[in-house]
Amino acid sequence: MKEYILLINTSDSKGLVYNVSKVLFANNLNIEQNAEFVDVETNKFFMRTVISGNVNAKILLKELIEVLPKDTQVKLREKSKKDIVILVTKESHVLGDLLIRYIDGELQANIKAVIANHDYLEDLVQKFGIPFHCISAEGMEREAHEDLVIDKIKEYEPELIVLAKYMRILTSKFVQEFPQQVLNIHHSFLPAFIGANPYKQAHQRGVKIIGATAHYVTDDLDEGPIIAQDVVRIDHTFSWQDMRRAGRNVEKVVLSNALQLLLEDKVFVFGNKTVIL
Amino acid sequence: MKEYILLINTSDSKGLVYNVSKVLFANNLNIEQNAEFVDVETNKFFMRTVISGNVNAKILLKELIEVLPKDTQVKLREKSKKDIVILVTKESHVLGDLLIRYIDGELQANIKAVIANHDYLEDLVQKFGIPFHCISAEGMEREAHEDLVIDKIKEYEPELIVLAKYMRILTSKFVQEFPQQVLNIHHSFLPAFIGANPYKQAHQRGVKIIGATAHYVTDDLDEGPIIAQDVVRIDHTFSWQDMRRAGRNVEKVVLSNALQLLLEDKVFVFGNKTVIL
Amino acid sequence: MKEYILLINTSDSKGLVYNVSKVLFANNLNIEQNAEFVDVETNKFFMRTVISGNVNAKILLKELIEVLPKDTQVKLREKSKKDIVILVTKESHVLGDLLIRYIDGELQANIKAVIANHDYLEDLVQKFGIPFHCISAEGMEREAHEDLVIDKIKEYEPELIVLAKYMRILTSKFVQEFPQQVLNIHHSFLPAFIGANPYKQAHQRGVKIIGATAHYVTDDLDEGPIIAQDVVRIDHTFSWQDMRRAGRNVEKVVLSNALQLLLEDKVFVFGNKTVIL
Amino acid sequence: MKEYILLINTSDSKGLVYNVSKVLFANNLNIEQNAEFVDVETNKFFMRTVISGNVNAKILLKELIEVLPKDTQVKLREKSKKDIVILVTKESHVLGDLLIRYIDGELQANIKAVIANHDYLEDLVQKFGIPFHCISAEGMEREAHEDLVIDKIKEYEPELIVLAKYMRILTSKFVQEFPQQVLNIHHSFLPAFIGANPYKQAHQRGVKIIGATAHYVTDDLDEGPIIAQDVVRIDHTFSWQDMRRAGRNVEKVVLSNALQLLLEDKVFVFGNKTVIL
Repeated sequence: MKEYILLINTSDSKGLVYNVSKVLFANNLNIEQNAEFVDVETNKFFMRTVISGNVNAKILLKELIEVLPKDTQVKLREKSKKDIVILVTKESHVLGDLLIRYIDGELQANIKAVIANHDYLEDLVQKFGIPFHCISAEGMEREAHEDLVIDKIKEYEPELIVLAKYMRILTSKFVQEFPQQVLNIHHSFLPAFIGANPYKQAHQRGVKIIGATAHYVTDDLDEGPIIAQDVVRIDHTFSWQDMRRAGRNVEKVVLSNALQLLLEDKVFVFGNKTVIL
Repeated sequence: MKEYILLINTSDSKGLVYNVSKVLFANNLNIEQNAEFVDVETNKFFMRTVISGNVNAKILLKELIEVLPKDTQVKLREKSKKDIVILVTKESHVLGDLLIRYIDGELQANIKAVIANHDYLEDLVQKFGIPFHCISAEGMEREAHEDLVIDKIKEYEPELIVLAKYMRILTSKFVQEFPQQVLNIHHSFLPAFIGANPYKQAHQRGVKIIGATAHYVTDDLDEGPIIAQDVVRIDHTFSWQDMRRAGRNVEKVVLSNALQLLLEDKVFVFGNKTVIL
Repeated sequence: MKEYILLINTSDSKGLVYNVSKVLFANNLNIEQNAEFVDVETNKFFMRTVISGNVNAKILLKELIEVLPKDTQVKLREKSKKDIVILVTKESHVLGDLLIRYIDGELQANIKAVIANHDYLEDLVQKFGIPFHCISAEGMEREAHEDLVIDKIKEYEPELIVLAKYMRILTSKFVQEFPQQVLNIHHSFLPAFIGANPYKQAHQRGVKIIGATAHYVTDDLDEGPIIAQDVVRIDHTFSWQDMRRAGRNVEKVVLSNALQLLLEDKVFVFGNKTVIL
Repeated sequence: MKEYILLINTSDSKGLVYNVSKVLFANNLNIEQNAEFVDVETNKFFMRTVISGNVNAKILLKELIEVLPKDTQVKLREKSKKDIVILVTKESHVLGDLLIRYIDGELQANIKAVIANHDYLEDLVQKFGIPFHCISAEGMEREAHEDLVIDKIKEYEPELIVLAKYMRILTSKFVQEFPQQVLNIHHSFLPAFIGANPYKQAHQRGVKIIGATAHYVTDDLDEGPIIAQDVVRIDHTFSWQDMRRAGRNVEKVVLSNALQLLLEDKVFVFGNKTVIL
């Protein structure tokens, strides 16, 4: 039987769960998974429900909207693989992790293309039979280069854009072209060490733990809603290069885990935070 | 407004969430928190709901039972501190952690008494104005000693009995006297190193990580449903005494975290496992 | 047999290990433990050696200085408990952890006194028979209050001063009075969330992991050399108060672990970092 | 300048560090890194030294042996990449991780060949231009199949054999053919869940943390000296398939980290344990 994911985001009020479950019950649908969260501080209600059965999306959405508050956002989506485009620069570890997951079927996504601002990773990507586009930024204005990248992305109509160590700062325009569609991995435990060379910064500060952060990209550099983080212990014997090597394991796992959450529609953006159901 | 915790454990079927939320809505109750889990393999449904409002427990339970499957277990409990009794032997770290949490009000429990089979910790307990009973097992049969301990526990009518490094094996009788009421901390990452001297066992095996496990006590030694676990890294420089020292931090935090879950009625026992909502 | 700790901090050059071990061998001393570290970037050499045997400290130091570079710092210390003074404000969890370790003999220190700027913790400290001094800052200038605290500390001549959630900012004068003697616990994973209310900051930022940092106190707030850090996972369900509760477990363990390192003379300060041998 | 790794394993006695450093000094060699460990219980001494300079290996070893106890094991090895052969069955995640590290130059090894008992991974391996040999075990006796595998391995004369989820049990003969040369990854936190289907075992036991263990292969299944371990948190919502998915991240990182330690000659085997310097 087909499965659908129902996402509701609204103001909290009495009877929400009752009203939603009534509609689902009346439509003869099964609840396979259900999770809710109420943010007490802001009175916001989030609900993610996996339903199975004979879904008439139009009718179901209409009936749900009737019983829910005016400010409600409802999404209904059939469970299926999402199309993604990956942006990279020179480093292979995050991309490589995605490619290996891709070919063994673990990644619930179709990698439509890899776009890079250097050609270092062309060989690797071509081994996997995926289109690779090198759009060099050399000698170009930031905006002009980015326009080319945006155009290329749009050709593939991806639902998500994954920055797998894409080492260029995106403009506001880019972010607005793909709202809540761009996932980035930053190689520090944010908000520590925002910006360039976080491992060098961490080395200089003498921290005993380093980390990585997967987040939605917004207009503010490294300031978007955090989806996943993880850390690894280091000590005084680590040069910043050693930190980078240790950090790579964290980067690739955090990015892959965050992407998995997005592919399963488990992430609500809520102000500058995420609710993960 | 008073808050109540509603716990439902039943077979999964269509309309469960709908039926429960309908009753709550009809009784004009707010859902403050709600969490559900369906174990697909066994078709079991678990639900923990924090409700607020004017609760008539008798009527509410009656109405819930009417709309739920026959095999349903329902509990309704007003949010309040629970009475506990702590059993110890000689080590102070887990007990001390509970005592410090107790006096600063963090522990949502009333420590009614501490019972020990040695008198080492009498001074410590008395500093905190808590009754301490030393029931020595010297020269006694296991059963006879245990009977004295059981009688002493019963005087305090605790909801939970916390074994805070109580280094004696309990008989079946003890376990049956207090079903699903006895929480133990075992100083290993179960199921590794069951039984005596887990740190010595871990040292001999040369593991690189050690841990601690909080679990319900059942008839099978160290085999009860696991509630919480945590670990800490070690290396070849650790003697087993060093492991014990490092492990103590884990033991006390794991035990306190598990106890907190029990005090908040967040733990369902399910076969030999736990569901934590 | 008596054990001594030898600490050497110097410029790296050929033959250092040879020269030190030659002197130890010539003095008929056993090396019980030995650890070295060379910071390649700055060419600095660090060595911590636990030696046993019949030590004539004066002769040994003289002979070592003769064979070592001019800029060498050498310390020789008989293994023994250190005197410490603890400063607190209102929170009991870090202090309580130290007190429990103290009475069960795990803490390799003599707690000479607890000094507070409030009287909340007086009862707790007095349970353990340790002098407690409340020096209220109410209505006083920062400097005047601090002078009273400094004077009181000096009465006890401690080797180390432990800030166990002492919620006041220290002046430069304080830091200079007790160079490399003041250990602080900050309730964030530094350098994230410097300053006041780190849990509120962390909640606002929406991080998925929080932490605590033990560091030497220097003139720059929360910027001193880091000795130990640890973290704990959180999620969107955590209010900042929940974060504080979860963070307390980390705070007390990190502070105790860092203090243990200082008590065993395992920490070298090196620029704004630490080398831990 | 060339760098060499000197490994010494002997009984502890007075003057060991002095004697070794004297020889190195007399040969005009620099100590780039040095680490020692004395196991107090068994009186064993381990030393790993990275030296640079003009090394005459024959003379140096001769002089070292002269000043060290009779039972000493000394190894001297120029720092260089090691040849390895990888054995796999069907799963791609550990192999894939090694391949990605290999092509980006992070892996300090030459992958000479991949040998499998199924042909599932042939395509993947061939993408990277590495010889792939499928030696099916179908219809063969264990020993006969293993002989073919041993012969194939020997053709490549590897220093290390990496079992990257090779799902067959090795005989004693195999282990003896390649003593202390075979590295395995077991998908559990050993010694918990030895043997087949550890994720199913973990699911059944209801643990809250799962892990992976990299170890030397010995005659006893999953009982060899442990080199590296790591863990990941799970909860009641994880099916055993979810555990396997989460565990894969741990497996590949633990195996890669352990292999890195072996490639850098940082691991001493000591009874059934490892010392990592």
